Amino acid sequence: MSSMSSLFMKTPSHANPFQKTPINLNNNKPISTRVRTRVIQPRVKARVRCGLIEPDGGKLVQLIVPESERDIKKRVANDLPKVKLSRIDVEWVHVLSEGWASPLTGFMRESEFLQTLHFNSLRLGDGSVVNMSLPIVLDIDDLQKDRISGSNSVALIDSNDEPVAILNNIEIYKHNKEERIARTWGTTAPGLPYAEEAITGAGDWLIGGDLEVIQPIKYHDGLDRYRLSPSELREEFEKRNADAVFAFQLRNPVHNGHALLMTDTRRRLLEMGYKNPVLLLHPLGGFTKADDVPLSWRMKQHEKVLEDGVLDPENTVVSIFPSPMHYAGPTEVQWHAKARINAGANFYIVGRDPAGMAHPVEKRDLYDADHGKKVLSMAPGLERLNILPFKVAAYDKKQQKMEFFDPSRAQDFLFISGTKMRTLAKNKESPPDGFMCPGGWEVLVEYYDSLAANDSGRVPQPIPA
Amino acid sequence: MSSMSSLFMKTPSHANPFQKTPINLNNNKPISTRVRTRVIQPRVKARVRCGLIEPDGGKLVQLIVPESERDIKKRVANDLPKVKLSRIDVEWVHVLSEGWASPLTGFMRESEFLQTLHFNSLRLGDGSVVNMSLPIVLDIDDLQKDRISGSNSVALIDSNDEPVAILNNIEIYKHNKEERIARTWGTTAPGLPYAEEAITGAGDWLIGGDLEVIQPIKYHDGLDRYRLSPSELREEFEKRNADAVFAFQLRNPVHNGHALLMTDTRRRLLEMGYKNPVLLLHPLGGFTKADDVPLSWRMKQHEKVLEDGVLDPENTVVSIFPSPMHYAGPTEVQWHAKARINAGANFYIVGRDPAGMAHPVEKRDLYDADHGKKVLSMAPGLERLNILPFKVAAYDKKQQKMEFFDPSRAQDFLFISGTKMRTLAKNKESPPDGFMCPGGWEVLVEYYDSLAANDSGRVPQPIPA
Repeated sequence: MSSMSSLFMKTPSHANPFQKTPINLNNNKPISTRVRTRVIQPRVKARVRCGLIEPDGGKLVQLIVPESERDIKKRVANDLPKVKLSRIDVEWVHVLSEGWASPLTGFMRESEFLQTLHFNSLRLGDGSVVNMSLPIVLDIDDLQKDRISGSNSVALIDSNDEPVAILNNIEIYKHNKEERIARTWGTTAPGLPYAEEAITGAGDWLIGGDLEVIQPIKYHDGLDRYRLSPSELREEFEKRNADAVFAFQLRNPVHNGHALLMTDTRRRLLEMGYKNPVLLLHPLGGFTKADDVPLSWRMKQHEKVLEDGVLDPENTVVSIFPSPMHYAGPTEVQWHAKARINAGANFYIVGRDPAGMAHPVEKRDLYDADHGKKVLSMAPGLERLNILPFKVAAYDKKQQKMEFFDPSRAQDFLFISGTKMRTLAKNKESPPDGFMCPGGWEVLVEYYDSLAANDSGRVPQPIPA
Repeated sequence: MSSMSSLFMKTPSHANPFQKTPINLNNNKPISTRVRTRVIQPRVKARVRCGLIEPDGGKLVQLIVPESERDIKKRVANDLPKVKLSRIDVEWVHVLSEGWASPLTGFMRESEFLQTLHFNSLRLGDGSVVNMSLPIVLDIDDLQKDRISGSNSVALIDSNDEPVAILNNIEIYKHNKEERIARTWGTTAPGLPYAEEAITGAGDWLIGGDLEVIQPIKYHDGLDRYRLSPSELREEFEKRNADAVFAFQLRNPVHNGHALLMTDTRRRLLEMGYKNPVLLLHPLGGFTKADDVPLSWRMKQHEKVLEDGVLDPENTVVSIFPSPMHYAGPTEVQWHAKARINAGANFYIVGRDPAGMAHPVEKRDLYDADHGKKVLSMAPGLERLNILPFKVAAYDKKQQKMEFFDPSRAQDFLFISGTKMRTLAKNKESPPDGFMCPGGWEVLVEYYDSLAANDSGRVPQPIPA
């Protein structure tokens, strides 16, 4: 992965999002206040910009305790009833700890859970509304509930029994799993990857409260330096003097159609009068389903694509979004957009069937391909965000490159689906010239090769991180 | 039912909601404008009142064409492609035609349908939000869709092929029945009464548009005079100089616990400073499930209860709410409340497990008994409505009457569930003295007797009207 760093090193040092990162991650200062002050301060010298978009609730939530208090919090945690976290739970602690879900200050209590399920939004104390479409909840079973009884706080521990966080002012309420699944996915069919992994076998209770996270969540997988928090991203955008930030959520390899879309979006923003639109290229890093390309391989592939020079590092920030994936289509795309507001993005690119998948039982897509875009454009709490619908790109056989689809010469275009792409890579075949840079394609072929070597046809297990 | 009319005749003539009704129904003037003018006009002579609560969207929707245009609209309808309405569809035309669903002007288009499913609310052109939790939609099948193709309007016809309404500026979109059911009920289990009756076998398309209803919807069942429209109810409340209107939705026989709650609510409103709070006792008149007591028997029972003098006719308006029942708990209770805003109610009494039922497959209630109340209190677009939680009443064995439950002497109380009540009535046993007035109880016994006489144990069919 060093080559991606070095790629960024070619750009002026202020454009390197990775240089400053470790320092911020380690000093654990409550950056949010600083960032916010910056945001609302009018900058006389700035050009057209008037600061980054405000986080939901006005203030970026930061739940990691100051380093000076870390030891004392660990001792406090030791004396509390314990709840063991799954890997997905840890990913949610990560998401909450850095304020991606601002203004949430911990796992949802019942009033937040109900508003999420019924309204995809939360009403705040001042009457304003923020978007919140996915339940961010922690389940416990009857035994754990009994063990906790009477306590106001619990310690959340990882798989090695190390304390990760303290949950304070707890509230325990019923976990109606069927209702949660039905209202989140619009189906209760068996085979929804997140539901199978994290809900079906979960406890019958949910525990909400306010989080104190003992130290920044790290995965030690060689990718932590790419996991910039919302406040670090905001700092980076400020440093680059971005007057527009457009986010591109992805969980798949990048092909030249994506690249075309991203450069075209920048062109459109410049036409709109923005002077320095910056792209947040933001692969999802949490739980994904078994047949998705795992994060580490995707990052290798993105690196090759960037090396190829299709995207300009000067105005591109690559970072990992730590959320797990629900595959909940129109419901989830709101979460993907909302979290990026908190990271400073005021433009969001939405594609065909975002966060969608095949119906787990029936022979059709689970969601109407246009619903994600439509629901996103109408979602409460996202009025401040500019939605940029994805233009359809396809392989132009005449020009031998990816191009926006032109219905007047439909016969010139070839649509290469994700399934088609995977089949080609698995069979070590090459896609048409100009579909993806050769280096990126090689990574994919190598990944499927490694699968074939590791097992003989077995479906790989889901990768939680 | 004549005796209920005569009961009202004892009260001053302005307090009789049934006298004026036929006149209003027949002249078909656009009453909404008149009502609204009244509402916003400050009345110097009035006491504490400042007019009834405004309808959602600011103006009560009225979709019945003026009588002078009726014939021409019938001729127009004859030349249009036809869509045959089920009895439930006709009930929705009724609901829409009188503005219960204001500001909806017809069956939902896709943007309204999606907002309803995902947000339980609609954002209007001016940015304001109104509640809308149940899809009010009309399905068509592939054949009907083909027949309509190219037309901008369709005629909606009843089971006798008579034109009921014209739907203009139509939009046809996909009907994902699984998603609709999952997001509305929070389950897809087979056996949901409304889903089985109106969705599972429905067409794969929905057709939305603006309604022109050719004449007021009537059922000719002897109960039409009790079906007051929102504008007629508003007129009635104005006439009575109501400065607060509290609505009580019901679909069950009234027992003395209900009566206690209603009189107690009035007492509380008087204590709050209102001078003339009026009760809207509002039984639901549309589709109900097979084991509910049918509307005609409930109205007989309500009549007896009112004759018994438990409720004061001077400050009570009895009317039928024409909506069909979904049994969708927390989702549906919002619809029940929202529709009553449009009828002028600014207080809404919400009970335990409103619009709830047993899970159709599992041995539990479908919804948490407290969720309806909680969701209602947080629902977008209902901020103007005052929610009055139902106090729990039970049979006080010491006082031999229904009384609010006092946990300090729990042993004195007997809870008589709906199931228990039905079992007693079926077996012609009597409930404890003071549970229900004897006349009302006799109606129930008579109803179950008629069932036993009509068939030998068969479950009765659902009663759509």
